Amino acid sequence: MYTISEIDSIVEKSFLNLKIEGTPQSLYEPIEYMMGIGGKRIRPRLCLITYTLFSNLINKEVIYPSLAIEIFHEFTLIHDDIMDKADTRRNQLTVHKKWGDNSAILSGDVMSIMAYKYLCACEQDKMSALLELFTKTASQVCEGQQYDMDFESMPFITQEDYINMIGLKTGVLIACAAEMGAIMGGADEAVCKSLYNFGFLIGLAFQITDDYLDTFGNEQIFGKKIGGDIVNNKKSWLLVECIRLATGEKRTELNRIMAMDENQNAEKIASMQNLYVDLGIKESAKKKILEYHDKAMDVIRNIGLSDVQIEQLSIFAEQIIHREK
Amino acid sequence: MYTISEIDSIVEKSFLNLKIEGTPQSLYEPIEYMMGIGGKRIRPRLCLITYTLFSNLINKEVIYPSLAIEIFHEFTLIHDDIMDKADTRRNQLTVHKKWGDNSAILSGDVMSIMAYKYLCACEQDKMSALLELFTKTASQVCEGQQYDMDFESMPFITQEDYINMIGLKTGVLIACAAEMGAIMGGADEAVCKSLYNFGFLIGLAFQITDDYLDTFGNEQIFGKKIGGDIVNNKKSWLLVECIRLATGEKRTELNRIMAMDENQNAEKIASMQNLYVDLGIKESAKKKILEYHDKAMDVIRNIGLSDVQIEQLSIFAEQIIHREK
Repeated sequence: MYTISEIDSIVEKSFLNLKIEGTPQSLYEPIEYMMGIGGKRIRPRLCLITYTLFSNLINKEVIYPSLAIEIFHEFTLIHDDIMDKADTRRNQLTVHKKWGDNSAILSGDVMSIMAYKYLCACEQDKMSALLELFTKTASQVCEGQQYDMDFESMPFITQEDYINMIGLKTGVLIACAAEMGAIMGGADEAVCKSLYNFGFLIGLAFQITDDYLDTFGNEQIFGKKIGGDIVNNKKSWLLVECIRLATGEKRTELNRIMAMDENQNAEKIASMQNLYVDLGIKESAKKKILEYHDKAMDVIRNIGLSDVQIEQLSIFAEQIIHREK
Repeated sequence: MYTISEIDSIVEKSFLNLKIEGTPQSLYEPIEYMMGIGGKRIRPRLCLITYTLFSNLINKEVIYPSLAIEIFHEFTLIHDDIMDKADTRRNQLTVHKKWGDNSAILSGDVMSIMAYKYLCACEQDKMSALLELFTKTASQVCEGQQYDMDFESMPFITQEDYINMIGLKTGVLIACAAEMGAIMGGADEAVCKSLYNFGFLIGLAFQITDDYLDTFGNEQIFGKKIGGDIVNNKKSWLLVECIRLATGEKRTELNRIMAMDENQNAEKIASMQNLYVDLGIKESAKKKILEYHDKAMDVIRNIGLSDVQIEQLSIFAEQIIHREK
């Protein structure tokens, strides 16, 4: 079995060696840019981690499909950034900000196709299973994004709505990465499905961590401005919980904060942070993250994995929930 | 062998039976709309025509991949319409005009994935070949659209640039349809490649016919306003040829027409039509269409096809170049 840092280095090297080339340059340059500005690469990492639980042979037939998941993910980010009118990502200008909406639409489109190209580099006898899983997942990610957009214009959504949405938008692709690795590694079907569920729950923990860091993270480490979700009244886990809990004076305070305009951003962020702390939401978010982490770990016990295999997944899961960026 | 009108009816029925469903409805409704407003379905028709040259068994394993090509094509139309800021298509509001840019981006994205889903309904032993061809083609279509956008801001392009662009934007997908049918029908590789080339050349004839009809078509039959390309100074085959040929007074006239603003649309269209006629471009466009048609027919002679098989392709080719809509 490879160590996680060995896998990280394989993933990093693979991205460095990835040849994004083609003509016209105006189409491929934004893709190269987007793939180059980094990211946590957690999907290909998880894919190779679950793969190496079952096989030690890492070759292009395995690496390329793992990269396919990340390429698909990056494509969704480019299109999401257009829809969200986001100016920056990872401290860099977003693709549509740098090249315009049209180029961002089209470069994203070609990345989505590129994802299939890399996916199809898998071994022939795995192709059908991987394609079915990936294609179903890819549709669900789009569904999640549509729910996210629909929620923006709704005054009230429940935690169930929220979890359903992030399950689609974030959970299923991480789940897909985990299961794809297991399928390619030759794990039996029940184990593959358990690893899917593990990935899904880790994905939920990952997203709530993201929401938490957007409000309570360290700007220097997190790499983007703290409070973006608050400024945009984005229905994060924290805000959905706040809407659920705030009554009386707290509800008045919540409404006051949400009505603040863009000249009051600093005050808006500070006031909302205080309200979250007052209502115990800062703490309950952390608890919720831990809860999903624990559920994820429960899923992979008693399915026939060795302690060493479980430990490997546990290290990854810990990294996800204790991250600061 | 099926007659072409039998194939047409299979294609039409297949689209009627296509279940576009899923949640949220806000994501799938635009897709259903787009698939419902018709189109000439020439790609799935050609795919089934080439298939039935070699096999008489039409089942879902063949129909679904043929629909995949059309679904992909419709996806590109949705995104192209955003980029072109087009208000109508097939006499109906475009998706982005009806639901907004964000929904149009996302519905297009999910259609691109849906295309892969239907493609993968093919027989297992054909999957790898079909995926490779389709994925390469899909990237090329995006490249063609990028060239088309890039050309908009260029004062001058050559006929070679133009043919290269429409080859990518239109030719390769029709070529892909023709070859996919042949692959699924079990034709040998050389025949598959020849049918690809046939489709490609027919695709060029198809696009120049489109350009011709946009300027000289019958509005009632064509189904959209005549002169759209002229109004937008769109670098159609006619305009590229006009830029090449117009010198002296004609060049002055061309510049005068192209500089007209949106209050002079009717005059702009009439003047440009006259200039095209004066310079013989109306006639040379028709000749060029016939030239590509004849080249396409040449490609499929002497590759071992029977007269009956060639006749079938000839009927299709004639329909493409003699169409009025």
